[in-house]
Amino acid sequence: MNFQNIIMKKRNGLELDDNEIRFFIKGYTDGEIPDYQVSALLMAVYFNGLNKRETLSLTKEMLFSGETVDLSAIEGIKVDKHSTGGVGDTTSMIVAPLVASCGVPVAKMSGRGLGHTGGTIDKLESIPGFKVELSIENFIKQVKQHKLALIGQTGNLAPADKKLYALRDVTATVENISLIASSIMSKKLAAGSDAIVLDVKIGHGAFMQTLDEAVELAKTMVEIGNGMNRNVVALVTNMDQPLGFAIGNALEVKEALQVLGGEGPSDLKELCLRLAVEMISIGLKIDSASARKKAEESLGSGKALAKFLDFIEAQGGDADYLKNPSKLPSSSKTIDVISPETGYIKAINALELGLCAMSLGAGRETKESKLDYASGILLNAKNGDFIVKGQTLATMHLSDSLKYDPDIESRVAGSFEIVPDKTDSSTKLILARVCESATDFY
Amino acid sequence: MNFQNIIMKKRNGLELDDNEIRFFIKGYTDGEIPDYQVSALLMAVYFNGLNKRETLSLTKEMLFSGETVDLSAIEGIKVDKHSTGGVGDTTSMIVAPLVASCGVPVAKMSGRGLGHTGGTIDKLESIPGFKVELSIENFIKQVKQHKLALIGQTGNLAPADKKLYALRDVTATVENISLIASSIMSKKLAAGSDAIVLDVKIGHGAFMQTLDEAVELAKTMVEIGNGMNRNVVALVTNMDQPLGFAIGNALEVKEALQVLGGEGPSDLKELCLRLAVEMISIGLKIDSASARKKAEESLGSGKALAKFLDFIEAQGGDADYLKNPSKLPSSSKTIDVISPETGYIKAINALELGLCAMSLGAGRETKESKLDYASGILLNAKNGDFIVKGQTLATMHLSDSLKYDPDIESRVAGSFEIVPDKTDSSTKLILARVCESATDFY
Repeated sequence: MNFQNIIMKKRNGLELDDNEIRFFIKGYTDGEIPDYQVSALLMAVYFNGLNKRETLSLTKEMLFSGETVDLSAIEGIKVDKHSTGGVGDTTSMIVAPLVASCGVPVAKMSGRGLGHTGGTIDKLESIPGFKVELSIENFIKQVKQHKLALIGQTGNLAPADKKLYALRDVTATVENISLIASSIMSKKLAAGSDAIVLDVKIGHGAFMQTLDEAVELAKTMVEIGNGMNRNVVALVTNMDQPLGFAIGNALEVKEALQVLGGEGPSDLKELCLRLAVEMISIGLKIDSASARKKAEESLGSGKALAKFLDFIEAQGGDADYLKNPSKLPSSSKTIDVISPETGYIKAINALELGLCAMSLGAGRETKESKLDYASGILLNAKNGDFIVKGQTLATMHLSDSLKYDPDIESRVAGSFEIVPDKTDSSTKLILARVCESATDFY
Repeated sequence: MNFQNIIMKKRNGLELDDNEIRFFIKGYTDGEIPDYQVSALLMAVYFNGLNKRETLSLTKEMLFSGETVDLSAIEGIKVDKHSTGGVGDTTSMIVAPLVASCGVPVAKMSGRGLGHTGGTIDKLESIPGFKVELSIENFIKQVKQHKLALIGQTGNLAPADKKLYALRDVTATVENISLIASSIMSKKLAAGSDAIVLDVKIGHGAFMQTLDEAVELAKTMVEIGNGMNRNVVALVTNMDQPLGFAIGNALEVKEALQVLGGEGPSDLKELCLRLAVEMISIGLKIDSASARKKAEESLGSGKALAKFLDFIEAQGGDADYLKNPSKLPSSSKTIDVISPETGYIKAINALELGLCAMSLGAGRETKESKLDYASGILLNAKNGDFIVKGQTLATMHLSDSLKYDPDIESRVAGSFEIVPDKTDSSTKLILARVCESATDFY
């Protein structure tokens, strides 16, 4: 087989067969096919697309390009959760213990943050002592014992995807539904859960900008999952403003504690419940209404919070900090960002706020950047709120070690779009739900 | 400037400005932009094209990526000739001395053959003693003295094109009119002539398969030339059968000697005259009818042949071999390929015959292949001819040193399409002529 002919075939709009896709992924992973040929193929895929069968085939080849995790030793239906990435997205930290507290085993692999989006591992590491370096053996043992464990992604999980993603990132070939879907799903499938609940973000600061695109991505991932005999459900959710009020590692842990205790911002709490309901109804094979009841009870009774503390302690974290959140890393210097006008908040640029929080030390500009767990941004107002000139829009928590760039203040202020008249900023949280049998719009 | 944004711009169908194209070619030539980003851009260009301005800008940048030849020391209008490559295409070897014999200075840079197409340098090197390694200084001196000199392409002529072409060749991004046109024209313009006559081949074994494509390529090259203030004329010519009867190095030299002596195959002779007329009328500023008269007289009087011998001797070749062509390399073993049926020849697959001749030793499969100058194929019949079962279609001249693959015989026979009834195989030689002011179809 000749890779040049494979490029030409896709360039000419033809379908690649399974052997050709296998040859591509195997050859690229082994270093036999050079980057410059693969990037030409990726650009041809950008223009001519991959059909359902090709997308499934690509996902399978990437999935089996490295190790896969075997969770069969854990009893019950293991349900994983994945978000396409947002700003102030504290859901994993809340949903995982919430679901586990309802009896569904959660064996979660998470990533670190890069760029404007945070990573669950970084957030949890703001809790002193917490460790994610478990062996797969201990990881499984902990899920059996505590129903919940969380580790970082092992290096050899879907290595083909790792290599392809790095290449797409520098060759303007990221924005293709099939490539995005197969990249996400190959990693999730390799992580070994029986079912996956996806949170596909739409809006500022998300991959997908329109509902159509987001639903197509959701459908593609559900189809891949079904093609691999996994139950996959996707919610398409709004990222036109940050979720909750907190952006930043320790700030988000504190917010997660509020939600797990039955309080906290209503949008974050509601999204967590909706995701948890999907996971619980699959994991326990019960209907949504019963699942919702269980989840709400768990939040109300303190069971979810107790599960979180239990989990943190199991992985070396000091639960004392969670019982007294004021002990968590906190900034010694804060700056209030003041509203320059009076009016209604129409939109909040989540991408820009994510970038500002990153510059304050909450995120990584490059893989080598050092985080300041205390730093970040706490919003004081959200879409639809009325604000008077001079009132606080948000509070910046500065890093003690990083030099503060005074431009950030005006960038944060500029992230809020304020209009004189009350607008229909209905800020619907869940826009669509996609499962094997149906797509529902809300 | 960020190359990734340039890829994205072209991917999104936007126009690249001159600075972006300069950044691309300079960065790639200097090794600062990696192959894998350039191949992604090339594939985006394949899909979204380059407009006139972008194509001219790309050509300029490639042209000035290395050395350019200054021919201003040579008096008169220097006219170059280029063919997009065909099988049995002996034209350069004939047209160059023919034109020079009429008083037009010809300073020609030629290439070696690769794959199924031959190269003028290889053909001339079948004449013992002939050398193409002249310094630019001696090259110019010889044109001043003999009106004609021929050298190989210097390594640093349009190095950006060299690098880009090698990449396009392995990434399925060859077939784009703008990329083909800028590649050809950057090299031709760097070679320093004032005017260029192009022979754009169409049909089996040529880059272009349809008349529309060939005319578009011709127009694009004429526009580039005009954009650089050079007079450029293109003829679109038929390559649906080999030109003349000979395919192979010494075989083609013998055929060239016939044409230069006023004899030889009519199609080859006519195409040479048509190309020569274009060159002479530009070079001497005379009309086509006068140019045609001059060229025909030169062939009839022996002036053209004398110029060829003069030129060969000036570059170290032994003219004795040309006065007695039977002394040129010739094969000790020939095989007649017999017609399997009776009928009319409808088409001859020039590409397949070119590949067969290559396998017999007349061409290079890779850059390192050694040639056998004597080997090749001599046709005995051409399109429209009536042939009886058992008659000879072509004679294969085998190499003394290469092992003969007996499959070639049936491949040569299979290259002739024979039909029972006389068909309208009018085999028109010149299909169109493109110059700055007009495109004429014949």
